[in-house]
Amino acid sequence: MQNYEFGAGLWMFQQVIDRYATDAYGPPVDTLEAIERAATVTEMKVLDINYPFAGDDVTVAQVRETLERTGLRAQAITPHLYKREFQMGSFTNPDPALRQKAIDLGKKAIEIARQLDAQYVKFWPGQDGFDYPFQVDYGRIWDYSVEGVRAVAQSDPAMQFAIEYKLKEPRVKMFFSSAARTLLAIEDMGVPNVGILMDLGHSFFAGETPADVVQLIARRGKLVSVEVNDNWREWDDDMTVGSVHLIETLEFLYALRLINWQKPLLLDQFPFREDPVKAARSSINTIRALDSLLDRIDLKALAAARDRQDALEAQSIVMEMLIGAPSLAVAR
Amino acid sequence: MQNYEFGAGLWMFQQVIDRYATDAYGPPVDTLEAIERAATVTEMKVLDINYPFAGDDVTVAQVRETLERTGLRAQAITPHLYKREFQMGSFTNPDPALRQKAIDLGKKAIEIARQLDAQYVKFWPGQDGFDYPFQVDYGRIWDYSVEGVRAVAQSDPAMQFAIEYKLKEPRVKMFFSSAARTLLAIEDMGVPNVGILMDLGHSFFAGETPADVVQLIARRGKLVSVEVNDNWREWDDDMTVGSVHLIETLEFLYALRLINWQKPLLLDQFPFREDPVKAARSSINTIRALDSLLDRIDLKALAAARDRQDALEAQSIVMEMLIGAPSLAVAR
Amino acid sequence: MQNYEFGAGLWMFQQVIDRYATDAYGPPVDTLEAIERAATVTEMKVLDINYPFAGDDVTVAQVRETLERTGLRAQAITPHLYKREFQMGSFTNPDPALRQKAIDLGKKAIEIARQLDAQYVKFWPGQDGFDYPFQVDYGRIWDYSVEGVRAVAQSDPAMQFAIEYKLKEPRVKMFFSSAARTLLAIEDMGVPNVGILMDLGHSFFAGETPADVVQLIARRGKLVSVEVNDNWREWDDDMTVGSVHLIETLEFLYALRLINWQKPLLLDQFPFREDPVKAARSSINTIRALDSLLDRIDLKALAAARDRQDALEAQSIVMEMLIGAPSLAVAR
Amino acid sequence: MQNYEFGAGLWMFQQVIDRYATDAYGPPVDTLEAIERAATVTEMKVLDINYPFAGDDVTVAQVRETLERTGLRAQAITPHLYKREFQMGSFTNPDPALRQKAIDLGKKAIEIARQLDAQYVKFWPGQDGFDYPFQVDYGRIWDYSVEGVRAVAQSDPAMQFAIEYKLKEPRVKMFFSSAARTLLAIEDMGVPNVGILMDLGHSFFAGETPADVVQLIARRGKLVSVEVNDNWREWDDDMTVGSVHLIETLEFLYALRLINWQKPLLLDQFPFREDPVKAARSSINTIRALDSLLDRIDLKALAAARDRQDALEAQSIVMEMLIGAPSLAVAR
Repeated sequence: MQNYEFGAGLWMFQQVIDRYATDAYGPPVDTLEAIERAATVTEMKVLDINYPFAGDDVTVAQVRETLERTGLRAQAITPHLYKREFQMGSFTNPDPALRQKAIDLGKKAIEIARQLDAQYVKFWPGQDGFDYPFQVDYGRIWDYSVEGVRAVAQSDPAMQFAIEYKLKEPRVKMFFSSAARTLLAIEDMGVPNVGILMDLGHSFFAGETPADVVQLIARRGKLVSVEVNDNWREWDDDMTVGSVHLIETLEFLYALRLINWQKPLLLDQFPFREDPVKAARSSINTIRALDSLLDRIDLKALAAARDRQDALEAQSIVMEMLIGAPSLAVAR
Repeated sequence: MQNYEFGAGLWMFQQVIDRYATDAYGPPVDTLEAIERAATVTEMKVLDINYPFAGDDVTVAQVRETLERTGLRAQAITPHLYKREFQMGSFTNPDPALRQKAIDLGKKAIEIARQLDAQYVKFWPGQDGFDYPFQVDYGRIWDYSVEGVRAVAQSDPAMQFAIEYKLKEPRVKMFFSSAARTLLAIEDMGVPNVGILMDLGHSFFAGETPADVVQLIARRGKLVSVEVNDNWREWDDDMTVGSVHLIETLEFLYALRLINWQKPLLLDQFPFREDPVKAARSSINTIRALDSLLDRIDLKALAAARDRQDALEAQSIVMEMLIGAPSLAVAR
Repeated sequence: MQNYEFGAGLWMFQQVIDRYATDAYGPPVDTLEAIERAATVTEMKVLDINYPFAGDDVTVAQVRETLERTGLRAQAITPHLYKREFQMGSFTNPDPALRQKAIDLGKKAIEIARQLDAQYVKFWPGQDGFDYPFQVDYGRIWDYSVEGVRAVAQSDPAMQFAIEYKLKEPRVKMFFSSAARTLLAIEDMGVPNVGILMDLGHSFFAGETPADVVQLIARRGKLVSVEVNDNWREWDDDMTVGSVHLIETLEFLYALRLINWQKPLLLDQFPFREDPVKAARSSINTIRALDSLLDRIDLKALAAARDRQDALEAQSIVMEMLIGAPSLAVAR
Repeated sequence: MQNYEFGAGLWMFQQVIDRYATDAYGPPVDTLEAIERAATVTEMKVLDINYPFAGDDVTVAQVRETLERTGLRAQAITPHLYKREFQMGSFTNPDPALRQKAIDLGKKAIEIARQLDAQYVKFWPGQDGFDYPFQVDYGRIWDYSVEGVRAVAQSDPAMQFAIEYKLKEPRVKMFFSSAARTLLAIEDMGVPNVGILMDLGHSFFAGETPADVVQLIARRGKLVSVEVNDNWREWDDDMTVGSVHLIETLEFLYALRLINWQKPLLLDQFPFREDPVKAARSSINTIRALDSLLDRIDLKALAAARDRQDALEAQSIVMEMLIGAPSLAVAR
């Protein structure tokens, strides 16, 4: 079994709200309390923390102290590029002053990342893109996206940056929508310190094959981090790992072995109606159990079936792993 | 041209928020202010108003007075069955006390509807359904849905009720998901005063053909009201009418003529990044212009093409309407 | 474990073709040869056989003899309502002569069903519906569909009929598209001997929750037969059972227990690039293994979790079944 | 108005078949007859012709003669990389002998293209990809795809090649699935004479925004050719242009102007149930009419709205074009 470290986006332990339950699914939780909650999850080691912090008076020093006390580490800092101010876009905002503000917030996030010893700054420009046909000049927002991320990345060549792509939400059509498109944009940036954060659920939602795409990104040397969750492929439902796409999640874990992934796996969940600590435990246990299945099988036989592109044989091996019965066995 | 009255869900003039822009897309707007805003839209005549009202101290008397002063009418009252308290469901909540609370809120909405002379009470049980495989007993939540709506409807046989179906959001999988399913559930209720509110965008999102479904509902005598908007068929984007699906919106307006629809068309939009008054004007103008196109064409020729199921001929007539050139015309 | 009998649509053992590989994926196989092939699948007991038969000179007597010799039974007869002649529709064809031909072919299928002792005649009107906006009068094709099926059903009240719904293909938009819509149309037929054949893959493709829908159909007494397969929910890919949607397939088998389903499960697969005998074996083995998992768990605990609508607890029980580890277990 | 030349994939005038109507939608039509049919479409100028030709004895000389006589030109040659022989893949076939055969057929297509003065050879590797989870080693088929196309392209550096991407069908998951992914693979080929054929319908089907993607491809200098049609975004329905996505088709034509596209637009339709000559005329007329709408509007005002990313203003201009009423006009 791979000895993955586990982590989480801190937001899964904070207050969640949506456009209908405008009184939120629970009370407010500030960044410090959320870290305390996260720390109660066995095996939780690292966090992706939003900046600005939740809770008006929360300071970097307090966050640092809470992390140290609870034994957790900051893995990433994610600036809030998608709040009210950036509703018309962050890096792609039509207003140059707001594009500059987005860049400034990105730089501020670097500062926080350094103070908290985080490994990377994550950009998830959830408001960048468009809503309506004819609304934007697509070439223009391509350039804005490339220029904005590059400006932040060039300001600190020693810091690592990761772009998290997603198809839609909150922007109706998001700019960084798929792995392949994001790789093209990163090429255009022409800087070495920007890569991709691959979110398993976003990959399902984008209609990608996650095991394929994680290899594609890794082969180009651009895989910075991995987040995990599940959904119904219709939306970014942010559910527990493996709850819907068990087989594809197993294949994704297999692909992580093929690329020899050694860094943490971070949960990205929105447990609207579930206890977040239990929801985290559920995902971690499922990943551990699925990954350990891979130890029990004849990986050479699987590789051989894949060399022949023999779907039924590959499936038979997978079914033996999952449900204890090779599907091609000749019945009694 | 049909002389449709126009209306709107009042929420389009209020504050909108989502799970990312948790500081909301604009400042809070109480029910009274929202009515004032709505009244600035030329041709706006009727409103669907959420209850409880937005703004802590807003009273029914104030709402009534504001409606009268602005010349608007309450068309419907929609109880908030989808806020924090009902996060695990309203009519389908596993807790009988909360199911009863949902019924009580439904009854309270009747009271408000009577005080404001509204035409119907709308149920949109956005939290009813499930999130995960194996989570619910489907037969059980069918019964709960049927029993809950029936309990409210039977409490006031003179009031009209309308169920608005939607595929998902906020619940990951909503119970009342399609027109056909909702018609079956209404049958099971066995009461005459429950019908359907058909939301054009929800129909697109559910993968239905709206012009087909509106006839299906009407033929069974269950079409209570109609809301309009548009989306990309991937989600309930609540955009302006006709902005994406122009041809199908035209076909829907044609279907409304076939069933001789005389009641208002209500806008159901979430103009996250647009001025709501302009967004409303845009939809109303588009509907008027589209509908008036139907006056200019040879409806008999269209009916004849449809009798023959002649796709290209029907399309030629439609293209002549929309872009001024019959697509089957033989070029010079 | 349920002692399901297994069967298959005979087409899975015949020649397959598509619009690109117009030279077909293999040589022609007539109905008699296909039965011989099917008989080599261990546990194969019953068949759904298309009429007219494949192979110009194949007679009913020969089919009967081949079935008897191989120990297989005809479970259903499916008339070819979707070949060239019916390209503009069978029951919904704009030409009354062709609508009558469809009815006549349905009646002929009854005759064949009686001669082969089949349990039901299946209607899958794959060309009924429309392709383009504005092409058809939806009310008209509703009536045609209802009248056509009713006419056949009334001609032999002792025969059972089953409608198989599907979203699209070959017709771009099929008339009988979902379970709920088909139930409404069956109601309108007003005859007792028409029900539904639920195809698991068609339910996935229609965006339904199969475990929900099978209960819905069964509660109304309309579940005539069940076909099984899998797909990517984007199309009717007709793949082996459980290969993509393992958890939902398990939930479907659980639902079959809840409704006490005792009749055969028929494979509906198109093994374009796979050996059909192996593809059948794979599905049967997977179903048996999945179903036997249900014997090992605490069904009461699962039912209790579902009563509480406790998603994480239900999932923990399911994960224990599938991967040997309850996902809510507290780690060492 | 742009003075586009029009063309078509010749297949739209030939026999069409599918997996259900195995007796085909009409009689066989050989390549020569199909050219004759195509020539009856007013304004038809160029053709994309499949090789091997339809009809056993049809020679290149005959095709050349028929083209000359009818006044049509061969624009492209598309080798049949997706027939029975290549059912397990062409460039990605697990069998090296078949991969070589695919390369050889590609080279043969070059020869034919030279003999017919075609502008490019098109690769549409419809069988390359996979069907099942775990079936293939994704890195391997990436390499095979890159190597196969490169081998053909390097054999004739003076010939232009175009890859046509599509999400699925006939292979359940196709390798060249989107514009961005195909651009990445073309980069890896490292040859200058391979680009993209963008099929409007495939772009809709892939969930792309065609007006965005056509600019993306063009900016990288890789847009070789354009095919047009429409579908319901659920499948490659190959319907007439603009019949469903009128607004996005208009936006696509606008984008073609922005990149100053001067080459032909080729129809890629499968008129299963329609007369192909009429179906072609319908598309050409619609394109002409839509494109001429762009002459009537204030393109500067549109560009200004897009600079501001003003969705409602841009839409108002579009609605004025399409339905004669700017949607933001203040009503009387």
